[in-house]
Amino acid sequence: MTERVREILSWYGSDTPGTRANLARMLHHGRLGGTGKMVILPVDQGFEHGPARSFAPNPAGYDPDYHFQLAIEAGCNAYAAPLGFIEASVANFLGAIPLILKLNNHDVLHEETDPLSSVTSSVDDALRLGCAAVGFTIYPGSAHARVMYQEAREIAQEAKAKGLAVVIWSYPRGSGLSKEGETAIDVVSYAAQIAAQLGAHIIKVKLPTAHIEFAEAQKVYQRYHVPIETLADRVRHVVQSAFNGKRIVIFSGGPRSEDETFFQEARAIRDGGGFGSIVGRNSFQRQKTEALAFLRTVMQIYAGEIQ
Amino acid sequence: MTERVREILSWYGSDTPGTRANLARMLHHGRLGGTGKMVILPVDQGFEHGPARSFAPNPAGYDPDYHFQLAIEAGCNAYAAPLGFIEASVANFLGAIPLILKLNNHDVLHEETDPLSSVTSSVDDALRLGCAAVGFTIYPGSAHARVMYQEAREIAQEAKAKGLAVVIWSYPRGSGLSKEGETAIDVVSYAAQIAAQLGAHIIKVKLPTAHIEFAEAQKVYQRYHVPIETLADRVRHVVQSAFNGKRIVIFSGGPRSEDETFFQEARAIRDGGGFGSIVGRNSFQRQKTEALAFLRTVMQIYAGEIQ
Amino acid sequence: MTERVREILSWYGSDTPGTRANLARMLHHGRLGGTGKMVILPVDQGFEHGPARSFAPNPAGYDPDYHFQLAIEAGCNAYAAPLGFIEASVANFLGAIPLILKLNNHDVLHEETDPLSSVTSSVDDALRLGCAAVGFTIYPGSAHARVMYQEAREIAQEAKAKGLAVVIWSYPRGSGLSKEGETAIDVVSYAAQIAAQLGAHIIKVKLPTAHIEFAEAQKVYQRYHVPIETLADRVRHVVQSAFNGKRIVIFSGGPRSEDETFFQEARAIRDGGGFGSIVGRNSFQRQKTEALAFLRTVMQIYAGEIQ
Amino acid sequence: MTERVREILSWYGSDTPGTRANLARMLHHGRLGGTGKMVILPVDQGFEHGPARSFAPNPAGYDPDYHFQLAIEAGCNAYAAPLGFIEASVANFLGAIPLILKLNNHDVLHEETDPLSSVTSSVDDALRLGCAAVGFTIYPGSAHARVMYQEAREIAQEAKAKGLAVVIWSYPRGSGLSKEGETAIDVVSYAAQIAAQLGAHIIKVKLPTAHIEFAEAQKVYQRYHVPIETLADRVRHVVQSAFNGKRIVIFSGGPRSEDETFFQEARAIRDGGGFGSIVGRNSFQRQKTEALAFLRTVMQIYAGEIQ
Amino acid sequence: MTERVREILSWYGSDTPGTRANLARMLHHGRLGGTGKMVILPVDQGFEHGPARSFAPNPAGYDPDYHFQLAIEAGCNAYAAPLGFIEASVANFLGAIPLILKLNNHDVLHEETDPLSSVTSSVDDALRLGCAAVGFTIYPGSAHARVMYQEAREIAQEAKAKGLAVVIWSYPRGSGLSKEGETAIDVVSYAAQIAAQLGAHIIKVKLPTAHIEFAEAQKVYQRYHVPIETLADRVRHVVQSAFNGKRIVIFSGGPRSEDETFFQEARAIRDGGGFGSIVGRNSFQRQKTEALAFLRTVMQIYAGEIQ
Repeated sequence: MTERVREILSWYGSDTPGTRANLARMLHHGRLGGTGKMVILPVDQGFEHGPARSFAPNPAGYDPDYHFQLAIEAGCNAYAAPLGFIEASVANFLGAIPLILKLNNHDVLHEETDPLSSVTSSVDDALRLGCAAVGFTIYPGSAHARVMYQEAREIAQEAKAKGLAVVIWSYPRGSGLSKEGETAIDVVSYAAQIAAQLGAHIIKVKLPTAHIEFAEAQKVYQRYHVPIETLADRVRHVVQSAFNGKRIVIFSGGPRSEDETFFQEARAIRDGGGFGSIVGRNSFQRQKTEALAFLRTVMQIYAGEIQ
Repeated sequence: MTERVREILSWYGSDTPGTRANLARMLHHGRLGGTGKMVILPVDQGFEHGPARSFAPNPAGYDPDYHFQLAIEAGCNAYAAPLGFIEASVANFLGAIPLILKLNNHDVLHEETDPLSSVTSSVDDALRLGCAAVGFTIYPGSAHARVMYQEAREIAQEAKAKGLAVVIWSYPRGSGLSKEGETAIDVVSYAAQIAAQLGAHIIKVKLPTAHIEFAEAQKVYQRYHVPIETLADRVRHVVQSAFNGKRIVIFSGGPRSEDETFFQEARAIRDGGGFGSIVGRNSFQRQKTEALAFLRTVMQIYAGEIQ
Repeated sequence: MTERVREILSWYGSDTPGTRANLARMLHHGRLGGTGKMVILPVDQGFEHGPARSFAPNPAGYDPDYHFQLAIEAGCNAYAAPLGFIEASVANFLGAIPLILKLNNHDVLHEETDPLSSVTSSVDDALRLGCAAVGFTIYPGSAHARVMYQEAREIAQEAKAKGLAVVIWSYPRGSGLSKEGETAIDVVSYAAQIAAQLGAHIIKVKLPTAHIEFAEAQKVYQRYHVPIETLADRVRHVVQSAFNGKRIVIFSGGPRSEDETFFQEARAIRDGGGFGSIVGRNSFQRQKTEALAFLRTVMQIYAGEIQ
Repeated sequence: MTERVREILSWYGSDTPGTRANLARMLHHGRLGGTGKMVILPVDQGFEHGPARSFAPNPAGYDPDYHFQLAIEAGCNAYAAPLGFIEASVANFLGAIPLILKLNNHDVLHEETDPLSSVTSSVDDALRLGCAAVGFTIYPGSAHARVMYQEAREIAQEAKAKGLAVVIWSYPRGSGLSKEGETAIDVVSYAAQIAAQLGAHIIKVKLPTAHIEFAEAQKVYQRYHVPIETLADRVRHVVQSAFNGKRIVIFSGGPRSEDETFFQEARAIRDGGGFGSIVGRNSFQRQKTEALAFLRTVMQIYAGEIQ
Repeated sequence: MTERVREILSWYGSDTPGTRANLARMLHHGRLGGTGKMVILPVDQGFEHGPARSFAPNPAGYDPDYHFQLAIEAGCNAYAAPLGFIEASVANFLGAIPLILKLNNHDVLHEETDPLSSVTSSVDDALRLGCAAVGFTIYPGSAHARVMYQEAREIAQEAKAKGLAVVIWSYPRGSGLSKEGETAIDVVSYAAQIAAQLGAHIIKVKLPTAHIEFAEAQKVYQRYHVPIETLADRVRHVVQSAFNGKRIVIFSGGPRSEDETFFQEARAIRDGGGFGSIVGRNSFQRQKTEALAFLRTVMQIYAGEIQ
């Protein structure tokens, strides 16, 4: 175990050896293994946006085996997906990569202002499928946030008791927020705090803008001169908001973007003290060779091999 | 076991031997046994549309014994029905045909924009009645979809643990969709994906039209030239959307139609790589002799004995 | 055991010996014992309509002992009542008559368009009180029908596992129906079908009129010339709708009426193949001597001793 | 055991020895012990109306010990209170008086048309605190009546199985009723019937007026000349409505009133066959000496020592 | 054990030795140990108001270790925080200070008139983390108060059975109250009564104003001349309202204020018979040295070392 991983694990002193071992497995796996940085491949877009919107750009992605192969060949730390995708292929890739079973999901066939994900699998499903962690999405700002917080809490308690790690996707959305507010710096850092207080081991948030959503928060940012000008500043503030950097915070890649834009963001995450990226559409919507090259660059940035 | 059945079963590597044995039972049963194709007789219309609308065209159908006899004589792979129908007759046909207990149902005595089925029997009912599988309907697009997804998930987890197979009827409906959208190609393939991600072994959807419901999807179908012109094209796209063909997808026959129309649809399902049909009103609303002849033709199309 | 009872029991081949024995107990008990016909005394009106409206016409009925005595002396097949009435008197009449514990109830102190009964006792209450069956009301057509169907299902599963019979009162009501539609022939036969599919052993419905509520149903009744002109025709259609006569269907007496009207209805039930009546207000709201004479005539009609 | 208590207990023939022993304890305790009459001290007004409105008139009442002392010294049959009050003092008065733990409560900090009490303690709390009975309020006429009936049912079943008695406060309220209707004779007697059918051993209602709320009921009261002119008549009708007098029905004292008014009411309760009073504000809002004298008179009326 | 602590513990005679031992631990810990007074450090503002609004004034507070250190060095009786904060640091401070796990939380990303906290951890979490007590917030006056009362009840019952103490934050809010009414004397004393009746061992309320919210209460305060003019009077009335002083009532410090204002409030709490303060923002939003000095003064006031 590297010094850095040992340090990170020291922040999880309340957890059982089983849970800490699974955190260690993810931190040690793949190209970034041991650096304390993580790049995770998540593929829940088939459920979240529909199959064609997700996989038509690279039809190999319709096949559940493909994403295991991509994550393994790219040297990701873990692969995250809903029940069906994991069930369909895990027996073909036993032990090859740490798995995160995404326990709730949401689709866009019914529009709503205040989203509420459906619980689509369980901690026991994660155990029978050999996963290292469970993933769960909360939508702070939704009128239904309470339901999701309480589901997250129950899942976290059960997962910890059964030796799994807990990853929370904390995505502000809903009638409590403006569209711009969903990625406002005060809101994203608040979302990170909530996930941390709910007991997440790993927290996934979107990259924040410099917008501030709430007047009450605005006063504080101004009065105390909280630095939020550059993306690295904002990453630093979000990481600080997650227990002063004592929780693993990784950032979402978002929709497919220009390579250089993405690399710049990765640099900002790295420089701001972020722990890495979860890269979905930017990897599986490319042809495999291209995706592998792209992910290699991202990992080199995190490893500090590229500035 | 035929090569084809062995191949199909290989896609279900996460499942217990009990569940895989029940899938094998259905795939090996009847005239199409071993071909990898399935024709299933479902009779839940008494609950869904009322008894007269369902059985007055062929009053023999009021009797629960009749449907067992029809399914057995026609050589179907399985017979699917709600609790009452199975309970009333199963003791007279022990072991004669694989059974799918339909665990939820819906009636039309109360109109609603966003349908929500009632859970009317349980996995333990399926076990005590000797069924091979449980069936469950979800309505993606309904404001109540979350309730049904979560019920489906709980049922699927219990059924798998108890060695049963899981069949999901995935029928888009509700305030999230236009009437035309219920059978739009983007919606039906999305419905197939959702059922697959929820962990269904067998997925039942309606035949899709070339209509595209959502603008976001429309862009993708155009940009990536997804072929959806012919019915066979669309079947192929739906099957692809269900894990690149690694889940059994069968298609609903719908209301009683002209024989030739139905046969053309069966050809399209076969040619597009679909796994078969679930034929309700088109079989039990005919006189028995006529129904047997009709189903024989359908099976011959699937077997490739008729082009 | 008579041939007829043996035949009736043969329709319940999925049930445990305990449940079938309790069905047999009810079918063999009282004056009509062994004929396959049933007359049941139900007294839940104190809860449903209030005590004065129920018992002021014959104040003896305020006393829970009275109804046991009436049912026993009249030779009914069973006595059905809510928890309180059974608890108050059962110890005074141990084993004297089969009992049906009515598990849900509804009052009229709060008006509502879409009724939803309250669950007021349990299967385990029925066991500790020595009952042969549980009774449960569903209101198809109510916006809350799903709640009641699901409660019915859970109760039916538990009752069957514990050796009790299940009686479902299936009374269409609610915003899905017009007032006239509550007793329309298409609706009553649909209600009988739903109760049968939910797994009821005995189904209680109201006598249907010749009105047809739904246009979709109307087309079918006309096209297939379903006979519904006479009351006997309609009874026959309802019985057919309950698994082609393979479920016990009995009819509700309704509010107190003229003797001759009631007897004509009993003849129609008998001639249409119905299994009998559940006679509440028409019996307990009369003086006892008069009630006994009245019920004797009803039973003689069912026994065929009076034409 | 007196003849009268033996007679009363004979109405509870379905209950376990544990429950009947607890009924006997309450019927034998205090000055009225053995007469079949009861005077109970209830103190839940601190929760229901707030502390100052309840206890400022006699500040000794802020102290939980006070009410134990008052009930014991006055010779009440039992003392009823919410969890906090019982927990705070029971260890100081072990075995000194039968206790009724009030399991649900309601406050007035949030106005509502259709009240719904909160469940604030459990049957197991009653057991660990050594109580003889549990108390529960239902509001027939509220849109939420179903919730309370079902909670009452679950509590009653558990309490009976664990040897406790069940006291139901049945107070009509809510959007189904006019203000005047809350104490209308048809409504109060209906409320008594509902509590009895739900399985209450002891039923607490308000004293009824001669008003009749519902037209359907009005017809019956007129047609059958039900006597409701005097308060004693109405008490008799309410008692009759609770299983022809075979359930213990006691009456609420209501807000503090003139002594003579209260005594007249007690006479009417006695003469109408009522079983006693539950006297809250009229006792604990007086100075103790005055309260003891007041309660002594009430008990003498019930004992027939004063006409 | 001091006489005062022994006296306080005597009010909790219904509790298990485990629970009383945990109350004793808190009462004996820190600078005020043994005096019967308490100063508790609560840090749930990260969840309740967001991280920047809470911790930007003193960025050391982003770190979960900091609050443990502050509470320990200041000699507080206990430290209260949500799951995440306790989990992150408890292993570094084993046994150093009694802990109160805050089991529910609320955020401000979604505005609502009637607040309802989310349950974010459990009694079993408190046990595995070695806490002495659980904390729970109720909002009397909210349309959702019933949900919180029932959750509080379930948690209190479980906590008591498992040997933990129960702290209830009782904060009137919601559509039942005006803004001014949230701290009205009748409302705050009512809130204290409700928490006491729900079974709280320690009750936390806000300091009340002399405003009276409800007309019914106003009459009583005037008629009985309840003294509420000075803050000490009002504290005395609130303490009286919590079982005549037989429950530990502590007061919330509120937002950061002038030192002298705060000290005056502490004097009023002390002089009115209050048991102490829960001091959040006024301590952790200052630099540590300043916070320690500030808390020392507060404790000296409570200890009577400063008048």
